[in-house]
Amino acid sequence: MKKMNGIAASSGIAIAKVYELKEPELNFNKISVDNPEQEIERLESALAISRQELEKIKAHTLKEIGEEHAEIFSAHLLVLDDPELISPIKDKINNDKVNAEAALDEVATMFIGMFKDMDNEYMRERAADINDVTKRVMSHLLGVSFPDPALIDEQVVVVAKDLTPSDTAQLNREFVKGFATDIGGRTSHSAIMARSLEIPAVVGTKEITGAVKKDDPIIVDGIDGEIIINPTDEEIKVYEEKQAAFARQQEEWAKLKDEPTFSADGEQVDLAGNIGTPNDVESVISNGGEGVGLYRTEFLYMGNSELPSEDVQFEAYKSVLEKMDDKPVVVRTLDVGGDKEISYLDLPKEMNPFLGYRAIRFCLENEHVFRPQLRALLRASAYGNLKIMFPMIATLEEFRRAKSLLFEEKENLQNDGVEVSDSIEVGIMVEIPSTAVIAKQFAKEVDFFSIGTNDLIQYTMAADRMNERVSYLYQPYHPAILNLVNNVIEAAHSEGKWVGMCGEMAGDSTAIPLLLALGLDEFSMSATSILPARTQILNLDKKELSNLKEQFLSASTADEVLALAEKTINK
Amino acid sequence: MKKMNGIAASSGIAIAKVYELKEPELNFNKISVDNPEQEIERLESALAISRQELEKIKAHTLKEIGEEHAEIFSAHLLVLDDPELISPIKDKINNDKVNAEAALDEVATMFIGMFKDMDNEYMRERAADINDVTKRVMSHLLGVSFPDPALIDEQVVVVAKDLTPSDTAQLNREFVKGFATDIGGRTSHSAIMARSLEIPAVVGTKEITGAVKKDDPIIVDGIDGEIIINPTDEEIKVYEEKQAAFARQQEEWAKLKDEPTFSADGEQVDLAGNIGTPNDVESVISNGGEGVGLYRTEFLYMGNSELPSEDVQFEAYKSVLEKMDDKPVVVRTLDVGGDKEISYLDLPKEMNPFLGYRAIRFCLENEHVFRPQLRALLRASAYGNLKIMFPMIATLEEFRRAKSLLFEEKENLQNDGVEVSDSIEVGIMVEIPSTAVIAKQFAKEVDFFSIGTNDLIQYTMAADRMNERVSYLYQPYHPAILNLVNNVIEAAHSEGKWVGMCGEMAGDSTAIPLLLALGLDEFSMSATSILPARTQILNLDKKELSNLKEQFLSASTADEVLALAEKTINK
Repeated sequence: MKKMNGIAASSGIAIAKVYELKEPELNFNKISVDNPEQEIERLESALAISRQELEKIKAHTLKEIGEEHAEIFSAHLLVLDDPELISPIKDKINNDKVNAEAALDEVATMFIGMFKDMDNEYMRERAADINDVTKRVMSHLLGVSFPDPALIDEQVVVVAKDLTPSDTAQLNREFVKGFATDIGGRTSHSAIMARSLEIPAVVGTKEITGAVKKDDPIIVDGIDGEIIINPTDEEIKVYEEKQAAFARQQEEWAKLKDEPTFSADGEQVDLAGNIGTPNDVESVISNGGEGVGLYRTEFLYMGNSELPSEDVQFEAYKSVLEKMDDKPVVVRTLDVGGDKEISYLDLPKEMNPFLGYRAIRFCLENEHVFRPQLRALLRASAYGNLKIMFPMIATLEEFRRAKSLLFEEKENLQNDGVEVSDSIEVGIMVEIPSTAVIAKQFAKEVDFFSIGTNDLIQYTMAADRMNERVSYLYQPYHPAILNLVNNVIEAAHSEGKWVGMCGEMAGDSTAIPLLLALGLDEFSMSATSILPARTQILNLDKKELSNLKEQFLSASTADEVLALAEKTINK
Repeated sequence: MKKMNGIAASSGIAIAKVYELKEPELNFNKISVDNPEQEIERLESALAISRQELEKIKAHTLKEIGEEHAEIFSAHLLVLDDPELISPIKDKINNDKVNAEAALDEVATMFIGMFKDMDNEYMRERAADINDVTKRVMSHLLGVSFPDPALIDEQVVVVAKDLTPSDTAQLNREFVKGFATDIGGRTSHSAIMARSLEIPAVVGTKEITGAVKKDDPIIVDGIDGEIIINPTDEEIKVYEEKQAAFARQQEEWAKLKDEPTFSADGEQVDLAGNIGTPNDVESVISNGGEGVGLYRTEFLYMGNSELPSEDVQFEAYKSVLEKMDDKPVVVRTLDVGGDKEISYLDLPKEMNPFLGYRAIRFCLENEHVFRPQLRALLRASAYGNLKIMFPMIATLEEFRRAKSLLFEEKENLQNDGVEVSDSIEVGIMVEIPSTAVIAKQFAKEVDFFSIGTNDLIQYTMAADRMNERVSYLYQPYHPAILNLVNNVIEAAHSEGKWVGMCGEMAGDSTAIPLLLALGLDEFSMSATSILPARTQILNLDKKELSNLKEQFLSASTADEVLALAEKTINK
């Protein structure tokens, strides 16, 4: 019996035996070649086979898992056909007269290195995509076969160094009961897919592959991030009970899908979902979201090699609004720059990108980018309940300027006879300390606030949350954060405005009682967190919590806040 | 007649004729050489002549200007003898078999490029030092002569693209009445020396060298940053009057040198100076400083190739304390990391250095660096009125930990029979928003606060002040900044503690009335700002200003604050 901890990536308990999913060995030698044409043919042929396979996996994923996840393979297919990747490989074969393997490896390594060091989830995932595709093409160049997890026909827990999206997509839910990996985090592709497939998963264990062998009995506890290899009978019994309890809990959660969210003492709050693409809406709806609290529009810009047209944007926004029926959809305007690089926008390289030329700062100086987005949003507003918010607002001048551009475009559209809703609320993200501090002044002019805790915390603590050396300072429970959140909520309420939160904190079960105590109106989170949050809030007494507010606000440290919360809330 | 604007770098009015200080042309060809030994000899000889010249200029500076500024040439001499610079030049000559000019140029360009892109004043100045020294050595390699401003024997205004420290040091105060340059900022070496020499100067005009010729009559207005070339008789008359008025004002200021600082209604505040080295103390005293409000100790660490020993530090701290007699000296413990690189400390390369592993974050994890500084400070405390403050405090845990290390070392020293003052105040820099927000909690545990506005503003606005694209967001008068400053002051006063400010804002004549209104106790600034600030405060009614406090705090924008200040204060 051996225990191991990792990151709980997908809830639930799996009890089965180990299936080792190992990558094929992809060793090659760099060779000088005389006839590069032949190497280019070999490359083309490997690309073609890879393309066929990916089409097949994509179709399988569409059928078994859904459109949303099949998109990963569309992304892989795009990589295969991306001239920015493929041309340099061919150039290298031609110019350096090397074999296709060496050229592929060098070019891919360069791109992967470039993307994966970016402090940006999206770009790191692009690095992972290129990595996946490269391995597949390489295996065909080398004539070695790729593992085929689709062949699994008995109940197993898949154990791997990491799971590529293609691996995950081939997993058959009937037989694969869970998985455990050495690397990966809560937001890696495979973790996201595990949650979609509702397969329990623990990732980032660092050492699982070295600790198991084929057919070892194993327990994966995706609730607490624990793994037991060769468990005792007693342990198996304990975990079977935990498994049953989790199943009962899921049934309880599901009952709340179409219910509003009330606290134990009858105070209503709204639980919404965060989305990145129109396809994410389905998950928000199936998890009982009462709206979309954050639609990150930059994905529309990042998947492309040029600016998305006004029409392309309009269709995306309209689709989200229609799918959400008349439920509120809060769209955040373009938040790029700094760490989120977009090649065609020619953003400057900066010493401190998190303190740089980002989001609204960029948009206000680039109206040729900003105005089409505003027009697309305004046109879409006729199709649902649209709310618009501007990111990275630090001064009232910025908000006034952004709003005036919006109103200019509204007038332009109306003059052209285009229908535009007259009830669009216009708000801001509160993610810069200055704005949280003078929320009272802002509250007079905005329709709503949405607190972006990820950035607010890192600026308030002056600590880059991606920087491991200082990540201990990324403290959501630091009393300064609670005081700023409280200041924003009090300011908004005194002007009759509402406050949402769309950072990670909003879906965190430790934070929810505190936020309820402070009077937060809307909680926007990952879709899968919505039902657990609703269940939790049903059992919380908002009034009782509000009585503790002053204690939380006057605590000295994050630890003190947590101790207080533990003592007073879970008593 | 032609007018031009620039940065007012040193106060006063100069009326004289133009002296063009031009750099020699230092063109060379890269040549392959057969006998590198000969090139190395040529290099050694050019280094030797440069050394002799620098020794001479250093002596001249010591005599004419003072020890403090002669140090620049000590720094240049160190560059000349720095094996990290000189060895690679020799290696290049030997390995690449190129002439000394090419090797010198390539190595120096590499170092200059590396240092000058750092977001750090000190490192940029090191780049300027290497640049200066390289030009001198290059001129000797090429056999061209360097300009000799020491030969000037009539009243002139020196006009140059930029003034190197060596140029400035050779200026004879008797004849050089002012200077004007194309480039440079308020904190460049030459601007600092101009202020020390009390020569009026306007820098950063961008175009002055192209707009004048030898002997053109010129007016340099270092008060308002204006230049008039070929002025009319009437203009000359106007500026002669301004010149006389400035002289009278200086006499008025000088009268206040040994006076305390009272507002018009008799409220006392303290005006202190910021220093970087023990030599800076003289200027604080001669300008009537009532203490040192910020002693930046990192200069002790940055000039070296290894950690300064406890004894070296002790001598520096003791010297400052003794020179200041029993006036308070606030020493900030080591603030390195992030943008302030120190080669021997092996600091990590970071994506966002301003949000990174800096100052107290570094010190608490590197006790072998921190403890010797604390011991040196404690030992020095017996020689004056020492106050210690920790930089970049974001949480109370950090302060508690730093203080406990200090007390541990105090006990260690006392056990060894070393005398340590029992009245050392221990405070913190308030430069991170979290700390400003929960100042009330901090005020219970610290002896004082010193607000570091440079960082506080950039974190509160989430805008890197060194990044030109967002520098417009570096707004000292943003109402959020005033609210945070106010929060810190109210929190401190409610616990009977005092609050200083040592950022640039403290010496700014626009900010001073606002800070007085908020109740700031101590203003620490560049030494030369002290007497003008004292004069200004003498004429301000603190009580009247306090009545305006709520108006300032509830303003919506920085512009609104400034408009209010203009209307209410200068009425």
